[in-house]
Amino acid sequence: MQSFNPPDVLLLGPGPSPVPQRVLDALARPTIGHLDPRFVALMDQVKALLQWALATNNAITLPISGPGSAGMEAVFTNLVEPGDTVIVCRNGVFGERMRQNVVRLGGSASIVDDDYGQPVDPDKVEAALKANPGAKALAFVHAETSTGARSDAQTLCALAREHGALSIVDAVTSVGGIRVDTDAWGVDAIYSGSQKCLSAPPGLAPLSLGQRAVAAMQARRQPVSSWFLDLSLVLDYWQDSAGGGRSYHHTAPVNMLYGLHEALLMLRAEGLEAAIARHLDSHRRLRDGLETLGLELRGDERWRLPQLNVVTVPEGVDEAAVRHQLLHGHHIEIGAGLGPLAGKVWRIGLMGHGSRIENVDRVLAALKQVLGR
Amino acid sequence: MQSFNPPDVLLLGPGPSPVPQRVLDALARPTIGHLDPRFVALMDQVKALLQWALATNNAITLPISGPGSAGMEAVFTNLVEPGDTVIVCRNGVFGERMRQNVVRLGGSASIVDDDYGQPVDPDKVEAALKANPGAKALAFVHAETSTGARSDAQTLCALAREHGALSIVDAVTSVGGIRVDTDAWGVDAIYSGSQKCLSAPPGLAPLSLGQRAVAAMQARRQPVSSWFLDLSLVLDYWQDSAGGGRSYHHTAPVNMLYGLHEALLMLRAEGLEAAIARHLDSHRRLRDGLETLGLELRGDERWRLPQLNVVTVPEGVDEAAVRHQLLHGHHIEIGAGLGPLAGKVWRIGLMGHGSRIENVDRVLAALKQVLGR
Repeated sequence: MQSFNPPDVLLLGPGPSPVPQRVLDALARPTIGHLDPRFVALMDQVKALLQWALATNNAITLPISGPGSAGMEAVFTNLVEPGDTVIVCRNGVFGERMRQNVVRLGGSASIVDDDYGQPVDPDKVEAALKANPGAKALAFVHAETSTGARSDAQTLCALAREHGALSIVDAVTSVGGIRVDTDAWGVDAIYSGSQKCLSAPPGLAPLSLGQRAVAAMQARRQPVSSWFLDLSLVLDYWQDSAGGGRSYHHTAPVNMLYGLHEALLMLRAEGLEAAIARHLDSHRRLRDGLETLGLELRGDERWRLPQLNVVTVPEGVDEAAVRHQLLHGHHIEIGAGLGPLAGKVWRIGLMGHGSRIENVDRVLAALKQVLGR
Repeated sequence: MQSFNPPDVLLLGPGPSPVPQRVLDALARPTIGHLDPRFVALMDQVKALLQWALATNNAITLPISGPGSAGMEAVFTNLVEPGDTVIVCRNGVFGERMRQNVVRLGGSASIVDDDYGQPVDPDKVEAALKANPGAKALAFVHAETSTGARSDAQTLCALAREHGALSIVDAVTSVGGIRVDTDAWGVDAIYSGSQKCLSAPPGLAPLSLGQRAVAAMQARRQPVSSWFLDLSLVLDYWQDSAGGGRSYHHTAPVNMLYGLHEALLMLRAEGLEAAIARHLDSHRRLRDGLETLGLELRGDERWRLPQLNVVTVPEGVDEAAVRHQLLHGHHIEIGAGLGPLAGKVWRIGLMGHGSRIENVDRVLAALKQVLGR
């Protein structure tokens, strides 16, 4: 066995997205202690940058030491208790994953189904909220990575609040790519991932909880089943809760936090509005180019995510063979379909640093050649 | 806010330990996809290297995508069901953390207490196993990072097996620093951390489960409460369980795995026996040097961990001030006491790449100056 030298691949799948050299360089800086005062100062900066990226003043805004699915689990395990009812919107693979979280925690999931590729239907959600008075929360995916559909987070969060339910928003693929307005929308709990539109490597899950979510945590009847993800413990490390300084909970992934910090600095230098506009430009270029090749994006244009483009595989084309040729012949990764869409679609991610016209043109040229169009 | 440039600190605390430049360089290699065949091949190498480091042929040997405490939780959440009794040995902070895991999962923890600093007493364990027929598991910490005490893992695992209980071994601080013989000792479940004697950055938790643990997982009466850590799902990504290729579970921390791979290659090149001997040499040099300064290591010499040295703070010395001066004046981090030992001890880690004579001499010289001895 030898040292690993990864191939040079343009990452245009559903994540991880391309990581800028500046972020990679930050990862490689010398490891220091997770309780070193200089590191604690860095943690404070990461919190402030995440508050900015999520458009929130929530004091509880921090990256969980794990991938996006650990972020999802952190939210559910802290908020859902056995016996709670949670209305779960399922219009893709990640909605189904939310349901799994609720059920495993002893909660009861009331499902609002929409077709894969469609946004969550607010009318159905309102009916479910009316049918389930006292539901603890409404959970939905803002940007479904499995289908490329955006849902109307603002409307859904308002409905939840109107009916006294917490809103839980999966923003793994949205933050940095489309507008996410945590406080203005009245989001109660939100989580994301480092490896999509934030352009850091996979392994951290930004999370933010508002006051109503904090109150629900404080009103729990029994302890959180997870010691590792119990936010009341995690917070003693991420903030000086008791006034006696930070206390050890687990050893933070020091170098990964260097990387996320640098990626957030880069995003802040560009500006959120500019980054969002760039994602839209790249998406339009891709859409037009695909059209020229006779390929079609799935879903209603109004709800399409610019950062995650789901392309219908044309009749008679071997979808896996195309991905294989793109990866090995053209050094471009695109994604396969997930769940019911497996074999039927490709997923072309234009996320974060990867969302650039030159990358769009490169994947279009490669597709043209591979498909012989 | 600016890019973070960490200070140059010699990490001689309880972890993270110094990360070699080769490992830092590996971290910074370009991110590739977590399902890229080249990355899957790297995962297979990481598994094989971990099997070697843990001295096991267990097929289920992989790094959990989180810090050591996620490794602990992965083991407990997969093996312990509500109603199970687990005998938990508590001779330090991490034994107490094990108890928390058991109780939060709805299990019943039968505690075997030993003084902080003492090894787990096999006689007490045997009595507890006899008093709790049908106990699901015996859980103990091989190398207690909070006290510097080693326990006799081989004897304890044999007792567990004799009484039909699974053995759960916390080897976070032991792997790579002292002998860990998973298969020969009959360990059923073991976990470690990347940031101690393995010299990788914090954020990954190697884990291995033997056949008896797998059988216990398969015989579960209810699903694992954690979706993220459910090994039956994690395994579909880490091995081709169903014969149809790897399937997506969560996005692996790609760059962190580059780092762990490189760190394991370096350990293999040195050899485990050589690394263990090096840890012992450094420890002896430190012990002798501390003696010259009139400082004392805690605990019975036979059970002292060479990689984690717990020093009694002399009467009248301000322990925090000494650590502060070492960190800011001499650029050396040592650790404070944890739990009941807070304020009473320093913890000097000589772990992995940091366990070298020149580092020992440097901390001794700094201590001499700071203490004015």
